[in-house]
Parts: sequence; structure tokens; C-alpha cells
Amino acid sequence: MIEIPHAPIAELVGFDLVEVGEGHASFELDPAERHYNPLGTVHGGIAATLLDSAMGVAVHTTLDEGQTYTTLELKVNFVRAITESTGRIVASGTVIHRGGRVATAEARLTDADGRLLAHGTSTCLIM
Amino acid sequence: MIEIPHAPIAELVGFDLVEVGEGHASFELDPAERHYNPLGTVHGGIAATLLDSAMGVAVHTTLDEGQTYTTLELKVNFVRAITESTGRIVASGTVIHRGGRVATAEARLTDADGRLLAHGTSTCLIM
Amino acid sequence: MIEIPHAPIAELVGFDLVEVGEGHASFELDPAERHYNPLGTVHGGIAATLLDSAMGVAVHTTLDEGQTYTTLELKVNFVRAITESTGRIVASGTVIHRGGRVATAEARLTDADGRLLAHGTSTCLIM
Amino acid sequence: MIEIPHAPIAELVGFDLVEVGEGHASFELDPAERHYNPLGTVHGGIAATLLDSAMGVAVHTTLDEGQTYTTLELKVNFVRAITESTGRIVASGTVIHRGGRVATAEARLTDADGRLLAHGTSTCLIM
Repeated sequence: MIEIPHAPIAELVGFDLVEVGEGHASFELDPAERHYNPLGTVHGGIAATLLDSAMGVAVHTTLDEGQTYTTLELKVNFVRAITESTGRIVASGTVIHRGGRVATAEARLTDADGRLLAHGTSTCLIM
Repeated sequence: MIEIPHAPIAELVGFDLVEVGEGHASFELDPAERHYNPLGTVHGGIAATLLDSAMGVAVHTTLDEGQTYTTLELKVNFVRAITESTGRIVASGTVIHRGGRVATAEARLTDADGRLLAHGTSTCLIM
Repeated sequence: MIEIPHAPIAELVGFDLVEVGEGHASFELDPAERHYNPLGTVHGGIAATLLDSAMGVAVHTTLDEGQTYTTLELKVNFVRAITESTGRIVASGTVIHRGGRVATAEARLTDADGRLLAHGTSTCLIM
Repeated sequence: MIEIPHAPIAELVGFDLVEVGEGHASFELDPAERHYNPLGTVHGGIAATLLDSAMGVAVHTTLDEGQTYTTLELKVNFVRAITESTGRIVASGTVIHRGGRVATAEARLTDADGRLLAHGTSTCLIM
């Protein structure tokens, strides 16, 4: 069974791993004012952090004994503003491609009604 | 003169605006264990947050009276792991293109010796 | 019914629109030596051209009377080398988000056996 | 000295390598109607092909004896429409980061007056 180690940033930002399985993982967060940018909405970096976490753990679940990975790049599209009134949001990541040296993943960030807030992809190097 | 309003996330994560001018802006952060991912390095979302902030403020400086903007998408490449021992890091953002409706920007994240840690681009919609 | 106008590049490169519907579209190509890069595989620009076409037409199908669109940015991941022996390949694009001013789409490039060759996303501005 | 092998796609599309040096390379093209999308402008895939070529060759110049590379991903922003009347365009690529296993590069596509038409980045795996 895959063990996902503790991440200090999860406490700092306030997100939780709520689901993990072969090739996928989900994190949740309650958006709050402490996450806001100067425009009064949740900073894009918070959405990026959740999506990156969901994709990274999704790739992590595909590793063999002794393998590790590093994220080479991350791409995020922001499609709806997020505020405290959005309520709990969930980032769900899924592996798209798992090769010998490289893995790619995608993730979606949605609210409790399933409305899309942001989406992303990433490229990971397997070592 | 452009006024960059207060951002709650800057306090949560611990970064500071250190330079701003027409078409560019820089933010600094002291990496610490609270920013770590499960792999024991600074979470990619922190680098993304700094780069996004630097590019967003760079675009903000080009706005006319009554205009606002929103970031449509963000792309980040992570080229070196960041830890507490990296020391103070700086994200410098610059506008690449400023059209009537769309602006693009790029940013680089470096350590005190100028070594590149991450770089990114973003696309903003002017409204 | 949506009419997709003629594209000179489709003749130059040799790809065909094979399917189009509300929010999706597919193009096919027979990879050949004339598409090769110096490394002896199909140039990434060809995969990008097919994915961009599939996503652009997918967004096009969502336009209202009098609306037009422009692609702001395109992101492509190349996951398997393509050669003449890959056989016919298909790029299928789907709209992810359709807002008032911005649409995002994704696309996958696969061979006849459904094996993934490349995938991408794009951001379009609706005008 | 680096030898850049022949690329069949350069003949198909009509672009030429005009400059190459340690960590950089440039390609030129005369935009023509055969490059057009259904909207009557040069297809984004052509800009992507030029930018990808410029970045790929830029990375190629940094390879050691016996090394090869593959492009993992490509990101392109389109900032101005290109037509036949744009005149000759040039894509200039530069290596941003060259690590042991991964290289990143950026490129700009400009017209003869230096006006920016498109820009991009890419991530390459060194093997």
C-alpha cells in the first residue's frame, strides 16, 4: 500500500487528502480570507497548490519500490473566481500517461456542486 | 502611481513585495519547513504562488484608470529543488505583451546568487 | 448547423476533419516522412497542429451567431514518438469550459489502437 | 561543431535555419496562404512548429557526444495574427536551463520590425 507522507504545507494552507487510489488522488480545502489575493478572491497559487498536490500524489501511487519522482512543470487554467462563499472545494488528480521515465497527469478543481473552478496538467520525471 | 493593495496570502505564506515599476514586479520569500511538500522540499505551489504574484502585479502596473485584470492561465517549470538552506529567494515578473484585451508575462525565481530555481509564464485578460 | 470553412493548411499537412459536434471535433492524419524532424520522427509541430485544430473547432461549435474566437495559448505534451509505421492518428478535441469571454479545451492524439501519443489544452478568447 | 541534420518538415512547411550557436538557434519563414487556418490567418500550428524547432535546436547545441534529447512538452502564446502581409518572420530559441537530465528553453516569434507575434517555452529530456 502507498503511504503518503506528511506535508507541512497542508497545515499551512489548510488542505486535506480525502481520497487516493491507483493513479488518482483528491485534496479538499475550505477557502478563506487568508487565501485571498489583493483582488479579494482566492490567490491562483492556492488553486495551483491543490492541483499540483493532487497530480503529484496521483503519480506517486504509480511508483515502484525504490522509485521517486519530481514535478518538471505545471500548467493551470483558472476558469471561475473562488471566494469564501464558494464553500469546500476539491482538487482531483488523475494520471494520463505513465512511461518508464516520464508521467503526465491532469486535475480539476470543483465546488460541492461539481462546477469547474480551475484545471491543470503536469509533467513528472520518474527516477 | 500604482497602488498594490494588501494581500492576505502574502502574510499566510510569508512573502513580500520588494520592487515594482512599469511592467515589472518582484517578491521575496525565506523558504522554511512550513512550505515543504512530503518530499522534504518547498512545495511547487509556493513557487507558483510567487511567480503568479510577480506576473500579476507586473501586468497590474500597466492598467489604465478603471481597468482590472484576471489571470487566465499560469505555467511553471521547476528546475531546482528549494529548501530552507537555499536562503532568500526572489520572483521577478515582467510583462512580455500588453494588448488591448490580453497581456502575457514571464517570471523567474532565483536564489541570492542568481541561480535559477523555477520560471513561468502567464496569460491575463484585461477588463 | 455549424459550417467549418476550408483550411489551406489541412491540404499542406494532409489532415482531415472526420467528426464534429457540439463541443467536440476530430481530425485524422497519416504520418509520413514529409512530417519528420531531424530525429526521424514526426515533428512535434504536426502533433501541435492537429491538437490545436481539434480544440479550435471544438470551441468554434459553441459560438453564437456573430461570435468569433482566437486561440490565446496552446500547451502540448508529447508522450510517444510518431513515425510512418504508427499508422493513421486521430486528434480529438473537447471543450472543458465555455464562459462568456473565455473557453478552454483539451485534446488527445491517439493511434488506431487508442494508444496515447500526445495530449494538450488551450485557452480561447470569444469575441 | 554541431551538425543539425536535414528535416523533411522544413521543406514541407518552408522554413529555414538561419542562425545557430551554443544554446540558441533561429528559423525563418515567409508566411503564405498555404499556412492559413479557416479564419484566414496563419495556423497556430505553424507558429508552434517554428518555435518548437528553434527551442529544440537550441537544446541540441548543448548536447555532449552520444547524448540525444526528446521534447516532453511545448507551450505557445499567440499574441498577434500572422498573414502573408506580415512578411518574413523569425523564431529565435534560447536555452533557459540545462541540467543533467532536463533542459528548458524559450523562443520568440517576431516580424522584420521586431514586433512580437508569439512566444513559447518547452521542456526537454536529455538521454
